Amino acid sequence: MAGPLTLGEIVQRLGGRVAGNADTLVHQVASLERADARHISFFTGSRYRSKLAATRAGAVVLGAEAESESTLPRIVAENPYAYFARVSQLFNPLVLQAPGIHPSAVIAQSAKLGERVSIGAGCVVGEGVVLGEDSTLYPRVVVYPGSIIGARAIVHAGAVIGADGFGIAEDEGRWIKIPQIGAVRIGDDVEIGANTTIDRGALDDTLIEDGVKIDNQVQVGHNCSIGAHTAMAGCTGVAGSTRIGRHCAIGAAAQILGHLEIADHVQISSCTTISRSIHKPGTYTGLYPSSDNASWARYTAWVRHLDRLADRVRTLEKEKKK
Amino acid sequence: MAGPLTLGEIVQRLGGRVAGNADTLVHQVASLERADARHISFFTGSRYRSKLAATRAGAVVLGAEAESESTLPRIVAENPYAYFARVSQLFNPLVLQAPGIHPSAVIAQSAKLGERVSIGAGCVVGEGVVLGEDSTLYPRVVVYPGSIIGARAIVHAGAVIGADGFGIAEDEGRWIKIPQIGAVRIGDDVEIGANTTIDRGALDDTLIEDGVKIDNQVQVGHNCSIGAHTAMAGCTGVAGSTRIGRHCAIGAAAQILGHLEIADHVQISSCTTISRSIHKPGTYTGLYPSSDNASWARYTAWVRHLDRLADRVRTLEKEKKK
Amino acid sequence: MAGPLTLGEIVQRLGGRVAGNADTLVHQVASLERADARHISFFTGSRYRSKLAATRAGAVVLGAEAESESTLPRIVAENPYAYFARVSQLFNPLVLQAPGIHPSAVIAQSAKLGERVSIGAGCVVGEGVVLGEDSTLYPRVVVYPGSIIGARAIVHAGAVIGADGFGIAEDEGRWIKIPQIGAVRIGDDVEIGANTTIDRGALDDTLIEDGVKIDNQVQVGHNCSIGAHTAMAGCTGVAGSTRIGRHCAIGAAAQILGHLEIADHVQISSCTTISRSIHKPGTYTGLYPSSDNASWARYTAWVRHLDRLADRVRTLEKEKKK
Repeated sequence: MAGPLTLGEIVQRLGGRVAGNADTLVHQVASLERADARHISFFTGSRYRSKLAATRAGAVVLGAEAESESTLPRIVAENPYAYFARVSQLFNPLVLQAPGIHPSAVIAQSAKLGERVSIGAGCVVGEGVVLGEDSTLYPRVVVYPGSIIGARAIVHAGAVIGADGFGIAEDEGRWIKIPQIGAVRIGDDVEIGANTTIDRGALDDTLIEDGVKIDNQVQVGHNCSIGAHTAMAGCTGVAGSTRIGRHCAIGAAAQILGHLEIADHVQISSCTTISRSIHKPGTYTGLYPSSDNASWARYTAWVRHLDRLADRVRTLEKEKKK
Repeated sequence: MAGPLTLGEIVQRLGGRVAGNADTLVHQVASLERADARHISFFTGSRYRSKLAATRAGAVVLGAEAESESTLPRIVAENPYAYFARVSQLFNPLVLQAPGIHPSAVIAQSAKLGERVSIGAGCVVGEGVVLGEDSTLYPRVVVYPGSIIGARAIVHAGAVIGADGFGIAEDEGRWIKIPQIGAVRIGDDVEIGANTTIDRGALDDTLIEDGVKIDNQVQVGHNCSIGAHTAMAGCTGVAGSTRIGRHCAIGAAAQILGHLEIADHVQISSCTTISRSIHKPGTYTGLYPSSDNASWARYTAWVRHLDRLADRVRTLEKEKKK
Repeated sequence: MAGPLTLGEIVQRLGGRVAGNADTLVHQVASLERADARHISFFTGSRYRSKLAATRAGAVVLGAEAESESTLPRIVAENPYAYFARVSQLFNPLVLQAPGIHPSAVIAQSAKLGERVSIGAGCVVGEGVVLGEDSTLYPRVVVYPGSIIGARAIVHAGAVIGADGFGIAEDEGRWIKIPQIGAVRIGDDVEIGANTTIDRGALDDTLIEDGVKIDNQVQVGHNCSIGAHTAMAGCTGVAGSTRIGRHCAIGAAAQILGHLEIADHVQISSCTTISRSIHKPGTYTGLYPSSDNASWARYTAWVRHLDRLADRVRTLEKEKKK
C-alpha cells in the first residue's frame, strides 16, 4: 500500500487530471459525509449534489461534466467511480488476510497450489484441486476434490465449491442418487462471496469464466456455465445446466431456472424469476409489487380471477358489436 | 437452571398470579399435545382450545380472559407467550454450548474478548475483533478483522460476519474491486442465525443495533443499518445501504432492495419484495398467489396483457359515453 | 467400484436387456455430447434425438419405445434415467470422501457413531448426537447436540443441523428468546446439501423422514416435518411447524410459509410461494412472469389497480343491463 499521496502523484499513477492544487495530500478514501481534510471522496451524479456541497473532504474525484460543481482540489476522470475504486486500491489492501497457508487448513497432498496463495484457518482443499497464483481462500472455505480455480481468486468464508449437484432419478417412489462426476472449473480473477455454493457437474463440468464476480449466498447448480465478466448479486440462484452469457449483471435474489440460455450483456433485475431463455441483450424484470397490506389484499384478490375478468371484457365487447 | 418449581415459586420470580393449587410442581415446559403431569404448557388463543381441553399438562400459562377455559392449575399472566418464554428460560439453558474457548478455535492475538464468552470449535476470530461479555459463538462462525460485537450475542454455526460487501465498479467491461474498508458493528443482545452473512461496510460501517434478532441464511449487505429490536426471519435479504428502523418485523424470505429507508414499527410479510422506501408504520405485503398449475397458467397468462386489457376497458367506456 | 463392464455384465447386475452386441465393453458413463467409444450414455426423450444421432458413445441406455432410434449397442430398460443412475453407481463412488473420522473433526464423547461413518475435516458433532452406519459428513458440517441422523446419510459441507429455531416472544418492544429444547430427527438414506440449515424444534422435534433429498442452501424451520421420499431443490425455505407429506417434489427457491399442511404427492414449482395448506396431490405454481423491463413496467403498473379495473368492468356491465 502507498502512504499519503498528492493528487499529482495519483494522476501520475492512474491517469486523469488535477483541477486545483495538485500538491493536496490525501491519506485515505471516504464517503462525502464522513470525509475530512485528509480524505479524498468521489461524486458520481446530481443525486449527491447537496452532499458534495457540504463535504469536508480534502479532495474529490468527479467527471468532466461536474468539474465546476466543486471548488475543492479535484481529480477529473472519465469514469469517476472506477477511478475512485483504483484510488482506494492504492490506499487499501484488496485482501484482509495474510499470505501463506494457515496451519489449521487441511490441504490434500495432491492439491496444486500456485505461488503466493493465502489459505485461511479451517479451509479444506480436496484431492487434485488446483488453485492459481495469488488466490485467497478466506477461513472455512471448502473446495471439493477435483475443483480447479484460477489465479487471483478471492473466495470468502463459508463458500463451498464442488459439492454434489442435485442429481436424483425417481424409481418407484424412491430417489436414486446419480454420481456427480463432473468438476468445477473457475477462471482467473473470480470473486466468490461468503456461504455461496457452486456445485460440481453431473457428467460434464460446471464453468465459471474469467472475471466473474459472485456475491454471498448464491447457489450455482450443476453444469451451469457463467460467462466471463458477469456479476451476480447476493442470494441469487441458478438452477442446473443453465448457461449465462458474458458481461451480464444479475440483481440480488434473482432466480434463473434450469436448462436456459441467457445471452451476453443481459441485465436481470433484483428479485426477478427468469423461466425462459433470453436471446437479446437488455434489462429483464419480474418483480411483483408490494403495498400496505390492505391494498395488496384488494388487488391481489383479483389476480386469481384475471382470466374471468378478461372473459367479462370480451363479453362486453361482443355485445357492443351487435 | 432451576430444578423443579412450584407454580408459587414461579410467580414469585416472574410475576403473574396462580389460579388453582400453587404447590403444583412442574419440571419442564412442553406443548399442550405432548405435556404430561410434570410439564407446564401455555395457551394463547381460541385456535388451540381443543388442545387445551385435551392436554394432560400439570399446569398451564394463560391470559386473564382465558382463565375460566381450564380447570388445571394455572398461571395467569398479561402476556402468556412471553411469560412462557421466561418460564422455559428457568428450566433450560439459553445456550447449548459450554463457556470458554474451544482449543480448535483460531483467535487473533489482537482480538478483545469479554468475560465469560463461549467460542465453539472451528471458529475464526480476526484481528482487532471485539466480542462483548457473555457472548456465544457456536462452531465455525467466522468474524472478519475489525468487526465489533456487543454483549450477550448468540451467533449460530456457519455465520460469517464482516466479509467484503459486493463493491465493484465497471470499467470497460471489467469489474474493479472496491476495497471494503468499513467494519461491522453489532450492539448488545443480538442473535444471528446459522449460515447468515453480514457484510462489512464499503467506506462507512454496517450497523446492527441492540436487541436485533436475525434468523438463518439471512444476507445483510454492506452499509445497511438495522434498528434496535428489529427481527428478521430466515432467508431474508437486505441489499446494500438500506436503513431499517427500530422494532420492525421482517417475514421469512422477504427481500429489501438497496438504498431504501424503512421506518420504525414496520412489518413486512413473508416472501415480499420491498422496492421503495416505507415512511409509515404498518404491515406491507407483496406475495404473488399460487394455485394448482392449470389455474395459475390461466390467470398468469393475462398478467402480461394487463395493460392491453385496461386499454380495452377504456375503449368500452369511451364508446359508452358517446 | 467395478472395472470396465460389458453390456451383458451390466444387465446381469441391474436387469433390462441388451439390443446389439452384448460384449461391448464400457468404462464410464458420459453425456451424449461428450461420450466416446469407451462410454455408455442415455436417451430419455425426443428432445435429445439429434444428440443421440450424433453421439460417439459406445453404448446407450434407452426405453423400449426408443429402441429403434439407435443402432448402437444398447440396453433397453423400463426407466432409462434411473437405470443410467444405477450404471453410473457401478462405475463411480457415491461419496468422494474416504471413510473414517478426520483428525481435525471435533466429536463429543457422548456422540454415538455407527459403523463405517465418514466424517470430514472440521466437522463438529455435539453431545448426544447419533449418526447411523455408513453415513458421510463432508467437511465443516455442524451437528448440534442431541440431533439424530440415520443410516447412509450424506451431508454436504457447511450444513448446520440442529441450530436453534427462530423462537422469540415480544414483550414490551423487546424480544425474549424461547429456549429451543426440541431436537432434529433424520431418518435413513437422507441427503442434505451444502450450507443447508435444519433447525431443532422449539418444544417438540423437527422431523426429516427416510429417503428425503435436500439440495443446497435450503432452510427448514423448527418443528417442521418432511415426509419420506420428498425432494427439495436448492434455496427453498420451509417456515416453522409446516408439515410436508411423503413423495413430494419442491422446486428450487420455493417458499412454504409456516403452520401449513402439504399433502403427499404434491409438486411445488420453482420460485413459488405457498401460503395455504394443500390437501390434494398435484402440481402447484405461483411464479410471477418476467419480461423485458419496459413491458414489465407497463403491465405491472396495472397490478396495483386491478381492483379498480374490476370495478370499472362491473360498472360497464351494470349500465349494459339497464
